[in-house]
Amino acid sequence: MVKVAVLGYGTVGSGVVEVIESNNAQVSRSAGEEMHVKYILDLRDFPEDPYGDRVVHDINLILEDPEISIVCEVMGGTGAAYQFSKQALEAGKSVCTSNKELVAKHGPELLALAREHNCNYLFEASVGGGIPVIRPINSSLTAEKILSIQGIVNGTTNYILTKMGSQGADFEDVLKQAQELGYAERNPEADVEGHDACRKLAILSSLMTGKNVDSDQIYTEGITRITTADFDYAKAAGMTIKLLAIGRLTEEGRVLAMVAPFLVGNTHPLAMVNDVFNAIFITGNMLGDSMYYGRGAGKLPTASAVVSDVIDCARNQGRTIPCFWDSESAEVADVSETEQRYFLRVKASAKAEAEAAFPGRILELPGRQEDFGLFTGAMKEKDFNEKYSSLGDRALGRIRLA
Amino acid sequence: MVKVAVLGYGTVGSGVVEVIESNNAQVSRSAGEEMHVKYILDLRDFPEDPYGDRVVHDINLILEDPEISIVCEVMGGTGAAYQFSKQALEAGKSVCTSNKELVAKHGPELLALAREHNCNYLFEASVGGGIPVIRPINSSLTAEKILSIQGIVNGTTNYILTKMGSQGADFEDVLKQAQELGYAERNPEADVEGHDACRKLAILSSLMTGKNVDSDQIYTEGITRITTADFDYAKAAGMTIKLLAIGRLTEEGRVLAMVAPFLVGNTHPLAMVNDVFNAIFITGNMLGDSMYYGRGAGKLPTASAVVSDVIDCARNQGRTIPCFWDSESAEVADVSETEQRYFLRVKASAKAEAEAAFPGRILELPGRQEDFGLFTGAMKEKDFNEKYSSLGDRALGRIRLA
Repeated sequence: MVKVAVLGYGTVGSGVVEVIESNNAQVSRSAGEEMHVKYILDLRDFPEDPYGDRVVHDINLILEDPEISIVCEVMGGTGAAYQFSKQALEAGKSVCTSNKELVAKHGPELLALAREHNCNYLFEASVGGGIPVIRPINSSLTAEKILSIQGIVNGTTNYILTKMGSQGADFEDVLKQAQELGYAERNPEADVEGHDACRKLAILSSLMTGKNVDSDQIYTEGITRITTADFDYAKAAGMTIKLLAIGRLTEEGRVLAMVAPFLVGNTHPLAMVNDVFNAIFITGNMLGDSMYYGRGAGKLPTASAVVSDVIDCARNQGRTIPCFWDSESAEVADVSETEQRYFLRVKASAKAEAEAAFPGRILELPGRQEDFGLFTGAMKEKDFNEKYSSLGDRALGRIRLA
Repeated sequence: MVKVAVLGYGTVGSGVVEVIESNNAQVSRSAGEEMHVKYILDLRDFPEDPYGDRVVHDINLILEDPEISIVCEVMGGTGAAYQFSKQALEAGKSVCTSNKELVAKHGPELLALAREHNCNYLFEASVGGGIPVIRPINSSLTAEKILSIQGIVNGTTNYILTKMGSQGADFEDVLKQAQELGYAERNPEADVEGHDACRKLAILSSLMTGKNVDSDQIYTEGITRITTADFDYAKAAGMTIKLLAIGRLTEEGRVLAMVAPFLVGNTHPLAMVNDVFNAIFITGNMLGDSMYYGRGAGKLPTASAVVSDVIDCARNQGRTIPCFWDSESAEVADVSETEQRYFLRVKASAKAEAEAAFPGRILELPGRQEDFGLFTGAMKEKDFNEKYSSLGDRALGRIRLA
């Protein structure tokens, strides 16, 4: 019998309890022995809840109970969640989490602690919600040198961009819709400014390199400046716009890590990832391209990923599943020194100047007089920026090409 | 130090040696100790080959060498490959294979043998080439009751259907192209008649149910009767045509297992899987939909999957990784008793009769007089077939809807 404690009885926490208890035959078969939730730690009481009798308020009850071998940390944040995770691992209890913020910030330390205590710190649900992606990287793409990871890892922004593209609606209007549907928070900054995607990329690019990529080192740009005009040009060019989290090994062995809106060709598999769905596109040196697609958020999908980690812990009691993520810092490339291709939108009045500055392909939309589009060849970001800013307010926007 | 023997030095076998030796730093790090190929078993000699000195002709040399803990069976077929796999497992050596025919035919027996001898029989490369799909099912979707699997698991037919759709070319012409490019065999029957997909579906649907689905029980229909006219109608309806391998749990707890061409809506993720790429779309009761996409064939992608299994064996020496696939037969549903929706193409002269027999949506193509299309609602396959055959040679073709 495996007994589990769930820290935090919010959306994901209640999902974890539901998956373990309502899919119990499947879960117990997979784990190799019967599994149940013994404790739910929360500040609140849940007298009406079917599992309300398992709610406790004291972490020590869990830490000191030898029957508990696995703890699910689904509280979020880096305060109590960090303390409790450390204490659990130090007590030899495996920890499974959906807490991307904590994993991005303290991953190497918590992984080392797990190794030291012959248990596991697993975080499948921290990236891509229910999509298996962390375990495929750690346990399936093991013969590969991973060269790049490109992910749509934030459902809120993907929903907004999808609707902007399909409805021709403004960012602000679609954001309001998304908030009404519960797809966006009332304070949407973490999503629309790219911070959530940035944390997930810190995790993915750390696993790609085996070294630590700090989220503070990741160039991050949100979607708030994308306009309907950008979508009109994208469509005319056979493309769409996606917020991508990109981690790529450079020729010099550095990691290029950036979160930003990118133009993606309509035939690229990532172009088809719509609404709140997520996908992670990975290129290895032997396998080439592979992609992992599914629900990147939501109570049950995320909980299912947490429980898959719980099952892995049950299958691997007393041994640590390999995960290569050292505390040593990865060498992160300076984005301004890397080469990209760009689309820029420029006022019609600056046409001669823009054409001279950016030799490339012009795109004019029928019936649209006020501006035109321009696709550049590969150029250094820093050179691009210099020329772009020389156009002043006649430069209306720019998006990189994936 | 892990020493590996490779049985069969053909395309996949030489890829396995290349991945282990040329990605050695990565492979050895993942395995936790240095890994090398000690023997290559083949009937032929390879005096010019850089690994030619490792070629042997006697399986007993491998079976009796205590240094060999892992054997890659990449010979194909169910004769010697079956004997050697059994012998290796009986000697306590783990076996990793890309041999879908053998896995589909003797999977449960070889898995039981591995359990008995505390070693592993792994077959990631048998379905979807380099795409991680077997391990995600066995080790990631462990908290899920899997409700259905829909796969594009044959690259040759997907290439042919993609080109028929994009070029408006006939099946025979595109098949010839595919043969010239090496994407189709000179004798293409196993691919175009669906037999290859059928074997892969036997494996996937066995893993879905935990019981044995025999490939002989799988309804299998190839792509040879698909015409350019079908694609014209599909396009007009916002759809495309894909050869799908479908395994689905029915409400009665049976498995519906079939390989056949299906009409797929253009917005479905499987519609975007083009050329020789494969993808497997899985629906679970908690996670909902997820999809695994990549190169379904080819030397290095397939070899990468075999080597990921070798690494898993190295990580799990002396213990058997759980895999639920009993020898007990799954209850397979009779396709003629299941409900499907259909598209049928009928001669214009039979319009009144067809409309009376199949209440549904008519699709007429501008400028096309000789026939029309009809989309039915859900109906029992057996009822459909009866009405369809009553139209005699005025019924020109039918395709199920995914």
